[in-house]
Order: sequence, then structure tokens, then C-alpha cells
Amino acid sequence: MRVLVLNGPNLNLLGVREPDVYGTESYAALVRRVQARAAALGVDVKIEQYNGEGAIIDAIHGAMGRYDGLIINPGAYTHYGYALHDAIKAACIPALEVHLSNIAARESFRHTSVTAPACVGQISGLGIAGYEAALAYFAEKRP
Amino acid sequence: MRVLVLNGPNLNLLGVREPDVYGTESYAALVRRVQARAAALGVDVKIEQYNGEGAIIDAIHGAMGRYDGLIINPGAYTHYGYALHDAIKAACIPALEVHLSNIAARESFRHTSVTAPACVGQISGLGIAGYEAALAYFAEKRP
Amino acid sequence: MRVLVLNGPNLNLLGVREPDVYGTESYAALVRRVQARAAALGVDVKIEQYNGEGAIIDAIHGAMGRYDGLIINPGAYTHYGYALHDAIKAACIPALEVHLSNIAARESFRHTSVTAPACVGQISGLGIAGYEAALAYFAEKRP
Amino acid sequence: MRVLVLNGPNLNLLGVREPDVYGTESYAALVRRVQARAAALGVDVKIEQYNGEGAIIDAIHGAMGRYDGLIINPGAYTHYGYALHDAIKAACIPALEVHLSNIAARESFRHTSVTAPACVGQISGLGIAGYEAALAYFAEKRP
Amino acid sequence: MRVLVLNGPNLNLLGVREPDVYGTESYAALVRRVQARAAALGVDVKIEQYNGEGAIIDAIHGAMGRYDGLIINPGAYTHYGYALHDAIKAACIPALEVHLSNIAARESFRHTSVTAPACVGQISGLGIAGYEAALAYFAEKRP
Amino acid sequence: MRVLVLNGPNLNLLGVREPDVYGTESYAALVRRVQARAAALGVDVKIEQYNGEGAIIDAIHGAMGRYDGLIINPGAYTHYGYALHDAIKAACIPALEVHLSNIAARESFRHTSVTAPACVGQISGLGIAGYEAALAYFAEKRP
Amino acid sequence: MRVLVLNGPNLNLLGVREPDVYGTESYAALVRRVQARAAALGVDVKIEQYNGEGAIIDAIHGAMGRYDGLIINPGAYTHYGYALHDAIKAACIPALEVHLSNIAARESFRHTSVTAPACVGQISGLGIAGYEAALAYFAEKRP
Amino acid sequence: MRVLVLNGPNLNLLGVREPDVYGTESYAALVRRVQARAAALGVDVKIEQYNGEGAIIDAIHGAMGRYDGLIINPGAYTHYGYALHDAIKAACIPALEVHLSNIAARESFRHTSVTAPACVGQISGLGIAGYEAALAYFAEKRP
Amino acid sequence: MRVLVLNGPNLNLLGVREPDVYGTESYAALVRRVQARAAALGVDVKIEQYNGEGAIIDAIHGAMGRYDGLIINPGAYTHYGYALHDAIKAACIPALEVHLSNIAARESFRHTSVTAPACVGQISGLGIAGYEAALAYFAEKRP
Amino acid sequence: MRVLVLNGPNLNLLGVREPDVYGTESYAALVRRVQARAAALGVDVKIEQYNGEGAIIDAIHGAMGRYDGLIINPGAYTHYGYALHDAIKAACIPALEVHLSNIAARESFRHTSVTAPACVGQISGLGIAGYEAALAYFAEKRP
Amino acid sequence: MRVLVLNGPNLNLLGVREPDVYGTESYAALVRRVQARAAALGVDVKIEQYNGEGAIIDAIHGAMGRYDGLIINPGAYTHYGYALHDAIKAACIPALEVHLSNIAARESFRHTSVTAPACVGQISGLGIAGYEAALAYFAEKRP
Amino acid sequence: MRVLVLNGPNLNLLGVREPDVYGTESYAALVRRVQARAAALGVDVKIEQYNGEGAIIDAIHGAMGRYDGLIINPGAYTHYGYALHDAIKAACIPALEVHLSNIAARESFRHTSVTAPACVGQISGLGIAGYEAALAYFAEKRP
Repeated sequence: MRVLVLNGPNLNLLGVREPDVYGTESYAALVRRVQARAAALGVDVKIEQYNGEGAIIDAIHGAMGRYDGLIINPGAYTHYGYALHDAIKAACIPALEVHLSNIAARESFRHTSVTAPACVGQISGLGIAGYEAALAYFAEKRP
Repeated sequence: MRVLVLNGPNLNLLGVREPDVYGTESYAALVRRVQARAAALGVDVKIEQYNGEGAIIDAIHGAMGRYDGLIINPGAYTHYGYALHDAIKAACIPALEVHLSNIAARESFRHTSVTAPACVGQISGLGIAGYEAALAYFAEKRP
Repeated sequence: MRVLVLNGPNLNLLGVREPDVYGTESYAALVRRVQARAAALGVDVKIEQYNGEGAIIDAIHGAMGRYDGLIINPGAYTHYGYALHDAIKAACIPALEVHLSNIAARESFRHTSVTAPACVGQISGLGIAGYEAALAYFAEKRP
Repeated sequence: MRVLVLNGPNLNLLGVREPDVYGTESYAALVRRVQARAAALGVDVKIEQYNGEGAIIDAIHGAMGRYDGLIINPGAYTHYGYALHDAIKAACIPALEVHLSNIAARESFRHTSVTAPACVGQISGLGIAGYEAALAYFAEKRP
Repeated sequence: MRVLVLNGPNLNLLGVREPDVYGTESYAALVRRVQARAAALGVDVKIEQYNGEGAIIDAIHGAMGRYDGLIINPGAYTHYGYALHDAIKAACIPALEVHLSNIAARESFRHTSVTAPACVGQISGLGIAGYEAALAYFAEKRP
Repeated sequence: MRVLVLNGPNLNLLGVREPDVYGTESYAALVRRVQARAAALGVDVKIEQYNGEGAIIDAIHGAMGRYDGLIINPGAYTHYGYALHDAIKAACIPALEVHLSNIAARESFRHTSVTAPACVGQISGLGIAGYEAALAYFAEKRP
Repeated sequence: MRVLVLNGPNLNLLGVREPDVYGTESYAALVRRVQARAAALGVDVKIEQYNGEGAIIDAIHGAMGRYDGLIINPGAYTHYGYALHDAIKAACIPALEVHLSNIAARESFRHTSVTAPACVGQISGLGIAGYEAALAYFAEKRP
Repeated sequence: MRVLVLNGPNLNLLGVREPDVYGTESYAALVRRVQARAAALGVDVKIEQYNGEGAIIDAIHGAMGRYDGLIINPGAYTHYGYALHDAIKAACIPALEVHLSNIAARESFRHTSVTAPACVGQISGLGIAGYEAALAYFAEKRP
Repeated sequence: MRVLVLNGPNLNLLGVREPDVYGTESYAALVRRVQARAAALGVDVKIEQYNGEGAIIDAIHGAMGRYDGLIINPGAYTHYGYALHDAIKAACIPALEVHLSNIAARESFRHTSVTAPACVGQISGLGIAGYEAALAYFAEKRP
Repeated sequence: MRVLVLNGPNLNLLGVREPDVYGTESYAALVRRVQARAAALGVDVKIEQYNGEGAIIDAIHGAMGRYDGLIINPGAYTHYGYALHDAIKAACIPALEVHLSNIAARESFRHTSVTAPACVGQISGLGIAGYEAALAYFAEKRP
Repeated sequence: MRVLVLNGPNLNLLGVREPDVYGTESYAALVRRVQARAAALGVDVKIEQYNGEGAIIDAIHGAMGRYDGLIINPGAYTHYGYALHDAIKAACIPALEVHLSNIAARESFRHTSVTAPACVGQISGLGIAGYEAALAYFAEKRP
Repeated sequence: MRVLVLNGPNLNLLGVREPDVYGTESYAALVRRVQARAAALGVDVKIEQYNGEGAIIDAIHGAMGRYDGLIINPGAYTHYGYALHDAIKAACIPALEVHLSNIAARESFRHTSVTAPACVGQISGLGIAGYEAALAYFAEKRP
């Protein structure tokens, strides 16, 4: 079970950026926690972060045939990234959308996800634990 | 750690109702799987199901002071149950909203949740595994 | 051919309530006329009335396996009762939605039905005769 | 009791046109079934079909003083034919709007009827039986 | 100065149709009053009435090169007849839109005119006097 | 002068629920203050609280012929409870809608009341004093 | 027959202001033409111009009992002046709304009139001739 | 306790203006009733009426430091007077918005108040008694 | 390969009508160019033009079984002709929608096509060359 | 270079009004700072403040021929003052719209300016420095 | 005649991606067919594909002065890529927008193109033949 | 005081692109004018230009800790670049949004800025002088 974790725009600033919304753990901590949980679950994990929509699409294309699952936090592209939606759909890798914050409780433009319809499901508001839950989901799906 | 699982309208028909959307496992199977996972996690769990919005609100009120976490699948009330939203907010018990299906990929009226803003977060599309992930979340929060 | 007639909120006030909109015949008269027509058509009919959305959903669930057709007048829930919509769809009993008044000619919030998409069809504006037409429809469908 | 049945655009293609939506019975079968039911009910019926909104309006005008009831299936004009709406209102003949399919369960542009407010009521989703129900309604209204 | 008066759908029913909205004078009276005023003003007038949008467009095309002014009451096509709008614009004959009733004070669908932008201006609510005012306008424009 | 005070969903949590919005007085205090003021005004008062829309409708039906006035705080049903609107209209008891908080100053979904059009008027933002003002209004209307 | 002509904001700049929209005739010319036509028609006319909505309302109130007709060009208040709408309705003097330009052919915010529903009718796009047509309308209504 | 009562546009026409909506009592009667109730409550009251939004804002500014409470009926400015909203907020005098009629039951443009969010609360539909209730509210708040 | 070219309202005025939008070539030129290209491609072409929506629908019905392809320029019906949409879908002849001008660059009401969803595709903005491209498309599809 | 600075409703309360939004400097301080900067730039400046839309329009009309530039802070009229928009456009004096606060970051009704399209440009969020920047802009434009 | 063909996000997955929507021909096949047709038409063609909006804009800028025509398939950026729209407009190279599928028949977010207004025209639904038609269009424009 | 000037998509084409909108000065001229003014104000300035949203976000991230102010012209991303909005907010560098043209006077999609809420303020319509005003603003803020 190989899983690619793709983090979108501004997630690299985690811990720095609006700590009341996103928490005080750094991006490095996120990476460490995800890697640790993946190891515990016996999942092969790779974690990447990009700020451009095109770069995320490139990464999804590159994952085809190489990963069995995709955990994607599209950041603000969640709300208008139709090209990203198309990429997830085209890649045919089961994908879970993860958000650190509870997007339903924030500005109204964050209430709709245009990428989630291309995914298996969505986890939001659990902080870094959302990534861990997504890893667990893929681990259990492992044949 | 005591957790109340509240299932809303029509969830009792699980397995019978639109199996292509909700899967073929029965509601009894859902209950068994949630209880098993709770036991494994050392969480005290109670599972209830109601079809009326008032009845769900009553149950939330009744949970105050008796539960440490709430896992709620409000069914279709997710999309217009503002009274339910108020109840979750008023009860001050950390709540996770769970949906079996990926509501973002269904009819447009299911794309907005009026109850999620009153919760900690939302998990959708993982099937019964969504309840398990929610239990795990509460278990890890345990002091 | 067993048919359940489910009347929603405020229909019990028929004859009392806004007679210029709903006519002067009482709810008892509605019941008698429906029963008479059912008898004439050789249809087994049961008529119930509930004010709560949850109670109507309970009744629909209870009808599964016991009725061959459903005649439902959801009252104002027609316009926002998505949980009711889900119940009709889940129950898999052919349903006809009936309205006494011509809802298309009233306030704009009554112009859209969220429950009709889960039914076979809709009859509105014919008064009590709308129930009779629905009974006739089911009677003719009888094998 | 003289009743004019007016069928709007594309209804002449019945049986040919999208049989999964409109059924496999031909337009000739519709005419025969309506005529048979009218005869059985002792109703004088005339059935016409037009593709143009102007032609349907002409027919409604021509019906004034010559018919006691109007059964109209405005086809797609249902959703934007305000001139047709005005014609029905102006003609002062009690009218019932009939749709073969359940328009509430189809594309969103079909969810609103601009002609129904000018009618007594609306019957949709019953197939050709909808016309028969409309005939029965007028037959019972006969003094 | 030759002026064509084009009346749209249902105007032939004037006096019969909703007299509280449109007044009790008949369509024949409208024709007589318009002809009398035209004669008094020395304007050559022709008055036609059509129920179909296509027929009104045909008449506008036919007026090209033969009339110096157009007085048009598009009836309900005012609110959705974009093809009629294109015809008025294409014909390059100065046109005045006239409505017997005050459309701004009626149903909301009558509050917007899609044909008026193709005209010189609009007169509404003056009853038949609106046609007379339009004739006077053209008469004064006469070189 | 007999007045029924009907409190909707979550009002029983008064004092507990979001005290910055609803104040710190408990629901018992509300009941005492309303009873005291009613006594002072010589008004016969009954106070009930329900979380379900159906239960509130039942209570309104039960009030017919037994109360001369209705003071109703529909809680969040204010914003989508069309069935409740119908019940108030059907019951033909003069009703005043009361809100503890100033709903116009809160979330946008609270800016519109679908129940107020069925009432005589609305009082919002005065806290428990709003109930007292409503009682005074009914007391002065007493013949 | 006494008629008050009320011109709203910026009309005093006529001839100076956007001559391609409003023409090159000055406001003084407008006054002269209206006075001349009124004299010819035997109508007693007074012409006033105000830039403030309150001032126009004051003038309407002052006209009660002193004028038999009102010709009002509310300028841009046409599109949001609900207080002006209320004033026209309250004054109970028959009013005609006049616009120099064809407001239906300009920016979309000018397509709706909130004041016209309080008037008898509306004339737009005829330039100063619109005022003359309005005067003629009142002159003909004279008993 | 000094209270300023500010009446907005067209309220001076009370009794004359649409008596079926606003009642038959004159504005003078309103003034007398408010003064009488204020006297009875020991409240110092001043009552003013203005038709212009600017004049009402001027009056609110003038009230700063001189009044302890504001009762304001902004008339139609309620629905678009954002400058008035800002003035109430800026003045920092507790304000109650009062409407004679039940604005929720009238034209849709009257369903939203842009000024109420700047007030403590709103009372509508109680006629002149609404002003009395507002006075009583301020009287009870008196230290 | 037999192809029917159907031109909708006002296309007969080509060259006369708004030449800056539609070019200076006449309708006769359009016909000649389309016939010449069809001949060159060995396609049997018939070209018709109608101003009424009903007439275009009649023509489509008449084409069933007689043509292998349809090139349709619905003119302004493109934007509201749902009956035309139904006709194209019902006829089951592969259809291409063609527009002379680039409708996406014109008034906003021209940005949506309600007929294109019933076609194979759409070509806009190429002038008469759009018809030629459509002919070429059908010619290449020829078995 | 003569520049008129026009401040709209409630700006006179600067320093008093919502200091967290508008800062603690008084209106007198604003006047002094603007005058000082104008003197430094060699610009002839006049500063006026009005609460009524009509009064602001009067001032703009009065500025014609007497000022070379207009700095206008329309306060809340920014969002609905179409008459003000027309006045700025009519006056043909280059105008800059200035806002003390960053209106894009406040309530949604403040996100759109109906007056800015009539201006050369807009400066918002810079506090009093926004006026200074506007003065500098005009000073540099000086021939 | 030099033509640049720019393919947007996910087009490189052609043949792999949703074959029921986009067909089974691979992207390499698309390239070959376009090159072959260009050769046949004597057109110099270059074909590029990018997933990022910025990269496509870069490519358009690079094409200035080097290409005589642009064939662009902006993929999902068609629906929100306003920066791309600006780039096409700024580059002043005649552009044709091409879509493989009939975007008008897919999800509603695909019904509007924000890039087409900057192009000469649009071709959709013809599959790879759409590119060929675009090449033919440019070839015929060649002087 | 170090200030980073970030220009978004298509700004490099300044002088070439739509000169009636953006003026005839080249991008090089913009750079020279901004550098000259910065030098005069004693501000350390760096000017960069990117066409991709991701690239602009990268540049903002890179500016953290290295610049004291940000002047950003997001080009068309202004209207949908929510990821850019998040980046500006996350970076915690005071930012001013600058637009060369008066975006409020252009196409409606340019009337709303999604990035301005993350900035201190916005300057639009002043051409290159807008950048200079922004520099002056930061220069004055210098401690």
C-alpha cells in the first residue's frame, strides 16, 4: 500500500500561519506525525507540498501507476480548482480530501468543495489527526 | 471517555436503502462494528437512532453532562436542520459529523451542511469506517 | 392492493383552515370520501395524519412490506422535507404526492416540491378528488 | 361536457421520443386511450397537437364558448410560455395541466411551471393515465 | 409618416380578458381609437395582431422599407422574446413599446422587458391612450 | 384573557446556552418572570416548551378554542418552519413572535422569519422583556 | 386640472450632463417646453426640481389636496427610492413616471423601477416629449 | 430617562396613508399616545419626524449626549438606509426599531431590515402600541 | 449523406442586420457558400429558414428518417427554446449548433445555450465558415 | 489646482465612531491633516461634510466650474447612492473615491461601490493617508 | 501561416481519462492527427500542453510575434481562468477555443466559458476533429 | 524599509496590452518609475512579475522576514485567487493591493476582490501613480 500525501498552497507555513485557525504545530511536525503513523500502519508514504495548481496536477499525474491512494489537502484550491478536480478524476487513484480546519465553520467561500466530488470522501476539522485517519482508512482497505 | 453516537432519519434502513449509495451492510452491522471498535479503543459507546429532528435534539440535551463526545450523522437534516445546529452548539459536547456517503458528490442540496459549523469537524464518504475514525479521534483526545 | 394514505401537518384542520384555499369539507369528510372510493375500487386503504416530519417518516418505514402504494400529502414539508424525501425513496413503495390546492398558484415557497422527485408523480389542485384520482391510479396498476 | 385536449411541442413523437422517459406507447395510442376513456365517461372530447406556442394560443382562443374544460400538456412551454399562461387565464375555461413524466424528477429547468398558476391544477408522472384522471375530474364536475 | 401597430398574444381578447387589469373596452374599440387618432394626426396606420412570436417577427420583417415607425405591444413575449428583440433591432425601424397595464405593478416576471432595449422607449399603464401617445410621438418626429 | 406561551427548540437550555447571546437567566427564571407579569396583568398564562416542529404544531392545534392569544418563540424553526407557519395561520389565534436575541444582528440565516407573516407582529432583542411586552399587548387588547 | 411636475436628482444639469444620453436641450428648455404644452392643453402646471429623496417626498406631501396629477422623474431614486414609492402611494394623487432616456437600454441597475408600481404608468425614452405625453394624458382625463 | 422618538418618511401621513395597512389613527394621535404613555412611565420624551435620510442622521447625531434611548421607525429607509445604520451604530445610544405594520407580512423588499442590526431589537406589527412597548422597555432599564 | 441546415429567427436579414456583428455578406451569399461547400464535399444539403420556434420544430420532425445530419442555428431561441431542445433530442438526428457571431462575447443572455446540450457540439464565431466546418464534420463521419 | 473634499454621512463623528474601525483621530484632525498636506502641495482645498445624499449632490453641482478635482468619501452611500453616482458623472470633474477603512474586509454590503465607476479611481484602507494620497495624485496631474 | 496549439490541464491523459467522455484515442494520436492535418493544409503547427494556468499564459506571451493563430483548449481553466482570458486578449493573436467534449451537455460549472469572450470563436463536442476544423479556419484566413 | 512589489499575470505586457485600458507606458517604464520614486523616498524596493498563482505565492512566502511591506497587483487573480488571499494573510507582511485601471468601472467579474480583504487597503485607477502612492504610504509608516 503506497500512499501519496499532497499538500496544497500555504500548508508549508503551518504553525506560522494563523495559529488560532491551524494550530501551532509546524509543517515539519505534520510531516513527522504522518510518517510515524504510516510506518505504524505499514503504509509506504510520500509527502509533497506545492503552491501552484499546475504543480499539484503534475504531481497527481506522476502518481498514476505508482501509488494506491492519495491524501490531498488542496488548500484554497478546494473552492475553485476545477482543473484539480479533473486531475483527481482522471488519475483514477482513490483519493481522500483532508482539511486541518473545519471549513464549514469559516468564511462562506470555504463551504463548498469543488474537488471533493472527485474523491472518495472528505475529512475536515481534525487537524493533523485527519491525515492519520485517512492513512488508517487506506491501510484497512489494503487487500 | 463516553461517546454518544446519534443517527438521524432513515439510517435504520441501512442495507435496505439505496445500496449503491449506502452499501449493503445492515444497520445492525453498523451498530456491531461501531461497538466493536469502541470496545477495542476502550471507549464507552451508546448508539441511538431517531427520525424526527425534535427527537435528536432531545437526545443531545439528554447527553449533556453524561457524554464526552458526540458522533452525529444528521441524515438529511444536515442540510436544513438549524434547530439541530443550535442544539449541538448549546450542548457544548465536542461533536463530529459523519456521513456514510460522499455528500459532495451527490445532489446539490447535499453539498452544504448547516450542522457542521457547530461541530469540531466532518467525515464523509468513508462508509462505516467514518464512525470508526471518529471514535479513534475521541479516543486519542482522551486525557 | 393495499394503499396507505399519509396526511401531513395541519391537514387535520381541513374545513376549519383557510376555507377559501382548502374548501369547506372537513377532514372527516376527506376520510369518508377516500374510504368510499377505495371500497368502490376494491382497494384496501388506511388513512393516517401526522404533524411531525419524524412521525411521517416513522409511518413510511412502518409501511414497508405491508402496503403496495403510498398516497402522501406532505403539507408544508413538501417544500423543505429532505428527510421525508429520503424516506420515500428508501421505502421503495410507489408513491403519489397529492395536494388539495394548486400549489403553483400560491406563495413562491410552495412552487418547488423536494418530495415529488422521490414519488412516481404529483396531483395538485383537484381538492379531495386528487386523492380519488391517486386511488384510481393504483387500482389500475393492480396486476 | 365538452373537453379539449391540447398537446404541445413534440408530443406527436410519443413512443419514438426518449422511451425511457415517455414510455413506448405511440401518440396514436394516447389518442385512442383518451377517446376511449372520454366515451366511457360520456365526455365529448377533441384532441389536438401543436408545436408552436402561437398555435396553441390560437387553439385556446378558438375553444372559448365551445368547450367546458381544457386538458393541456404544454410540453416544454410549461417552463417559459408566459404568453400561454396569459391565454389560459384569458380564456376562462377551467384547465388542468398534464405531464406524462414526473417533471419534478428531471432537469432543474423542468421543476417550475409558469402555466400551472393559470390552471385549476396539475397532474404529472402518471403517463397517459394522467389524461384519464383529468377527464374523470371534469366528468365528475359535470352538473 | 406610415406607422405599423403590432399587437402580440392575447390582445385580441381585450375587453373579455381580465377586465380589472385590461379594462372593458374591446379590441375593436382599440382598433377604432387608434385609427381615429392616426387620422387626426395625419398618420398612415396599419394594425395587426398575432399570437405567435414567429408571426410577429415575420410582420416586423415585412415592415422594413414600408413603415417609418413601429408601435409594438409584445404581450407576454416582452419578458422572454429575445428573438423578437433581435427582430426589432434588425429591422432598423424606430419602435415604441406599449403596454395597456402598468407592468411594473404586476407579477414579478412582468417587471423586466427584454424587448424594450431594442426600442426607442416604452409607454405602460396608460391603457389605449398609450397607443395614442405613441402615435403623437411619431407624428411630431415627422419631418 | 388566556394566553399560551410556546417556546421552541433549545429554549429549555436558557442560561446554559451561549450566555453571551441569550443572557445568564435560566429557563426557570424566564418562566417565573412571565408568570409574574401575567399575574400582574390579570392574564391567564400557560407556558410550554418543545424541541420538535410537530410537537409545537400539535400544541397550537390544541390551543384552538382554549386560548385568546399565542406568544411563540419558534427558535430556529423561525427560519424554515413552513409547517409551523401554516399551523399558526390555520389556528386563527392572534399570535406574537418573540425572540430573546436581536436576530437581525446574527448569522444571515436568522435574518428572515417564515413564521412571522402568520403572526400579528414580532418582538426581538428585548430578552425576557419581550415576552412581557407581548403579554402587555394582549392584556390591552382584552375587551 | 392642476399638475405638479417633479424632477429628481441631476435633472437640473440637463444639456450639460452626458448629452449623448440625455440630449443637448437645457433644463430651462425642458421647463419652457412643458409650460408651453401645458398652456396649450389648458393645464395648470408647476415644475420643481430636487436632488434629495427627502425633499421630493416633502414636495409630494405638499401637493396633496392642491394638485390633480403628478408627473415625476425620480432620476436614479427610481431604482432604490422605496421611501419615494411609499410617498407616491400615500399621497393618492394619480402619478406618471417619466424618464428622458430609455432606461431599459442602459446599465442593468436601471432596468427595475421601485417607484413605478406606485404610479399609474411609466413613459421612458421619449426625451422631453415624454413629459408632453404625460400632460396630454392628464388633460384627457379631465372631467 | 430621556428618550428620542424618531419617525421616518411618510409617517406624518398616518391615518391618511393606506389605512388598511397603517390604521385610521392620525399622526397627531400617535404623538399624543406616545406622550401620554411616556408621562405615565416618567420618561422624558421628544418626538420628531423627517422625510430625508440625511435629516434623520442629523437628528441622531444631535441626540448624542442628550438622550438615553432612541425609538426609531425608519420607514422605508429600513430596507436600504445603510447610512442610517451607520449613524445608529456610531451614536452609541441604545435604539429600538419600531414598525406599525408587520413588515414580514408585506412586500418582499420589506422583509429585511438593514438598520435593525445596529439596534438593540425590533418591534413590528403592534401599531402604536409598539412605541409604548419600546417606552416601557427603556423605562424598565432605567437605573 | 443528407444534411438539413436550419436557420432560425432573423437570419434571413443577414447582411442587413447589425453588419458589425454579423458581417456584410447577405443571406443569399450564406446559402450559396453552404451549397457550394456541400457540393464540394459530396453532401446532399437542404437549407431552410424560419422565424417561429414551432416552425423550426415542425421542420426537425419532418427531417426524421430523411436526413443524416442537422446543422442548426437557432438564433435567439438558443437561449430559451427548451421546446426546440426537446425536438432536437427527440429527433435522434446528430445535430451541430452553429452561430455566426461569438455569442460568449455578447450580451450575457447569449452566454448560455439551452439547445446545445441536445446537440453533438457547437461552433460559434466563425461566421459562415462555421457552417462549412459543420458540413466537413458530417462529411468525414460518412461511412 | 483647486480640490473639493466631500465627506459623506457620519464622517463628522470620526474618532467617536467605532474607533477600532475608523481610528481615534477626530474629524477636526482629519481636516487639519488634509489642509496641511494641501498647503504643502500647493493645492487649494475646501473640505465639506454632509449627511444627506441630496446635500452631497448639491455640493457636487456647486463645484462645477469652480474645482479641478474632487475627493469624495461617500460613506455608506458608496453602496447604494446611484443618484450620487449620476452626480459625479454629470459634473465632469475628475473624482477620487476615498475610504478610511478597508471596505473589502468588512460586511459584505460594503464590498461593492456604485459610485466608484463614476470616479477615476478608489483608495481604501489607508486611513487619513488616503486623502493625502488623493491630494498628491491631483497635485501631480496639475499642468 | 503559423499556428500554436495550446492544450491545458489533463489533456495529456487523453485516452486514459474518462474515455466515455473524451474518447479512446490517446494524446499522441491527437498530436499526430493535428500535425497531419496541418501538413495537409500547409500550416506550420506547434503543439504544447501545460497543466498550470501560469504556464499557459507564459506560452501565450511567448507566441506573440511568432504565430499567426492560436488554437487553445484551456481544459477546466475555461470556467474560471480570468488571467488566461486576459492573456489571450493581451496577446492580440486570433484565437479559437476548442473542446473535445460538448461542454454544454456536462456539469453546470462547464456551461460558461470565461476565456471564449477573448477568442474569435469556440468549437466544442467534435472531438479531435474540432482541432482540424480550427486549423482549416486559419488556413482559409491565410492571405 | 524594504518593500517588495509583486506584479501578477500579464502585467509584463504593459503598454502593449489594451492601451486604452492600461495606458501606453511600457512595463519597463513602470519599473523605472517605481524604482525612482522608491529611491526618492529612501525605500529599498524589489520588483518582480509572475504569471502563475503558485509562483506569486512562492514569492510571498520568500518575502517573509525579508520585507517590511508588500505592494501587490494580482491582475486577474484578484477576482478568484483565494490561495493568493491565504498567502497574503499567512505571510503577515502589511500589503497594499494596487490596480492600474479602475476595476469598479470594468466588467462585472472585476468588481469584487478576493485578495483585498487580506491586505491593508487597495488603490485602483491611478495608473502607475498608484504604485507611487503605495510606496509613499509605506515610507510614512517607517518608524
